Amino acid sequence: MEMIIVSTGGRKNNDGEMNLTNNRQQIIDRTLKLYVAALSDAADEIGLNTVCMDRGIVPLTKKKRMAGFARTGKLVRSPPNRPYDEKQLDVFMSLGTEAVDGDLLVIDTAGATDCSAWGQVLTRIGKPLGVRGAIIEGTSRDIDDIDKMDFVVFARGRHPGTMRGRYDMESVQKPIVCGGVTINPGDLIFADGDGVVVIPPEHIEAVLKHAEGVVETDEWWANKLDEGKDPHDLHKERPIP
Amino acid sequence: MEMIIVSTGGRKNNDGEMNLTNNRQQIIDRTLKLYVAALSDAADEIGLNTVCMDRGIVPLTKKKRMAGFARTGKLVRSPPNRPYDEKQLDVFMSLGTEAVDGDLLVIDTAGATDCSAWGQVLTRIGKPLGVRGAIIEGTSRDIDDIDKMDFVVFARGRHPGTMRGRYDMESVQKPIVCGGVTINPGDLIFADGDGVVVIPPEHIEAVLKHAEGVVETDEWWANKLDEGKDPHDLHKERPIP
Amino acid sequence: MEMIIVSTGGRKNNDGEMNLTNNRQQIIDRTLKLYVAALSDAADEIGLNTVCMDRGIVPLTKKKRMAGFARTGKLVRSPPNRPYDEKQLDVFMSLGTEAVDGDLLVIDTAGATDCSAWGQVLTRIGKPLGVRGAIIEGTSRDIDDIDKMDFVVFARGRHPGTMRGRYDMESVQKPIVCGGVTINPGDLIFADGDGVVVIPPEHIEAVLKHAEGVVETDEWWANKLDEGKDPHDLHKERPIP
Repeated sequence: MEMIIVSTGGRKNNDGEMNLTNNRQQIIDRTLKLYVAALSDAADEIGLNTVCMDRGIVPLTKKKRMAGFARTGKLVRSPPNRPYDEKQLDVFMSLGTEAVDGDLLVIDTAGATDCSAWGQVLTRIGKPLGVRGAIIEGTSRDIDDIDKMDFVVFARGRHPGTMRGRYDMESVQKPIVCGGVTINPGDLIFADGDGVVVIPPEHIEAVLKHAEGVVETDEWWANKLDEGKDPHDLHKERPIP
Repeated sequence: MEMIIVSTGGRKNNDGEMNLTNNRQQIIDRTLKLYVAALSDAADEIGLNTVCMDRGIVPLTKKKRMAGFARTGKLVRSPPNRPYDEKQLDVFMSLGTEAVDGDLLVIDTAGATDCSAWGQVLTRIGKPLGVRGAIIEGTSRDIDDIDKMDFVVFARGRHPGTMRGRYDMESVQKPIVCGGVTINPGDLIFADGDGVVVIPPEHIEAVLKHAEGVVETDEWWANKLDEGKDPHDLHKERPIP
Repeated sequence: MEMIIVSTGGRKNNDGEMNLTNNRQQIIDRTLKLYVAALSDAADEIGLNTVCMDRGIVPLTKKKRMAGFARTGKLVRSPPNRPYDEKQLDVFMSLGTEAVDGDLLVIDTAGATDCSAWGQVLTRIGKPLGVRGAIIEGTSRDIDDIDKMDFVVFARGRHPGTMRGRYDMESVQKPIVCGGVTINPGDLIFADGDGVVVIPPEHIEAVLKHAEGVVETDEWWANKLDEGKDPHDLHKERPIP
């Protein structure tokens, strides 16, 4: 399965397109030269469905741009009145400890916002392994510390509470939903201040090519407007980006 | 009609009050010496109804203060499963291309937040014509680029998606609703970090005069408090601002 | 009653624990060496119920860290179509004028967000008396001015409208609810960018002791991770903080 090939990062197959998606750093570098809205427009052009997370998923950290490949986790509510199983946290930590260079963690928390699913310890674990950032369908804490580590976190806000006793780990590296978008392990994730875009591996090459065209059209428009050209005329020549 | 006189910016009539509202730059300069809460208090004093947009309309750009006269647009959802009519975008662009110095664009998007109704191209078109900012009942994108142009955008948040295929243009320069306030073309709009206030043309002179009094009372209170006067005594002399 | 002892700030009794909670500046200094998430974890460890305000209560000011003892006020909607009773504002102002050093004002506004319950005048009144900040279950205004005074305000957002004619004062120094947490006068309040924690006086000493242990465990983990130790092994030795 493609998702496994991408998430392990190094393996090759005989399909050129697939080789490209496996070349993770190259894709990340190419993506980071663009901006999220250009990838969103490109995804529209090639007819993909919802690729943008909703506006409630916002950057919490000072650093706001990140690109990487989805490594996913799903949390669910802990049952009440039961001693907390500390072994849960070993599985949760494996989100970070088994990550590889170029991964970007995305955590689905079933919408709870009474505690945090990301903090400074996971950042300390994941960052040295090459984790590019974290996106939480819920809340995060320790952001001041995380800023000192120059890491990127997007979430629905901040909350000081621990997840211990409030969340159980349901799955690692299974499909999840975050910000209204379905995310499979290995999807390309790209975030900047405008939001977050999610591109399935089989569309990465096409989306990047189109997005590079979008950026070129933006520049063409900017230059023509600076020259004083009429926007309605420009729109006839090349539709407004 | 007053709204037309104001929106064209230059015409005169024989009514002194109206001459004043037509003197757009003078009103803008006078407004920018005040702050939004003072205009809100003044509007209360002269008995106007809701003039403040709700707290969900927030500044997205680094620059947060703007004053200008409403130039309005209304977007509605595009019908599904229909090829997008690119001519729509000519009408949308006319929001910017037909703007005059001192306009401030306000766009009603029927509450949708799955795509953006303001971006860098409209900013590039409108700013050289003297557009003072944009307020969106919805979301905006390209804020990093817009910041470079030193422009002001208020909205309900950011979203990377294009409006193409998601919004149709319903009207330009008709009454709209944004942030819970009804806005007519030509209304004075004033925004700072505290929020956005909307003043109909026929009340601008009275509101500005009262607001100048509010600011004077603020300063009187600040000075008296610095002198160590008792706030309850001050309140008897001049009610708390 | 403990709440009265704490809120008056200076009185002593024969209970060592209580003496400590009365030593307000000492508790505040000790608290400000920690961070909110550590107090939240400590409150969990000793079995307290909800101590964290929800994620909607956010810092509005540049300065975001504050600790102090709750001085509470409750506002309710003004009845419509009735001349406003200006004497209400004398009671409202007493929130500030009767505050003592180390107080932190918390105002319950019954959820209304169409006007502000905190502004520059109350800041000017309370700050010289030693008020450490304000938390509003609602909105605040004049934040640019308040920033100049180096004061801290947390709320659900900003709104330019005055409370005059929109809020009546229901009570001062009675139990209230803010951010989903019940707050009694004299509760220790501690806020930073991660959120707000509320600790009843009888638990302050235990929570601070545990929180100091949490911070120590954080540092132990940070050092061990820097040494390259396996997080799963560390978790066996000392559970993940």
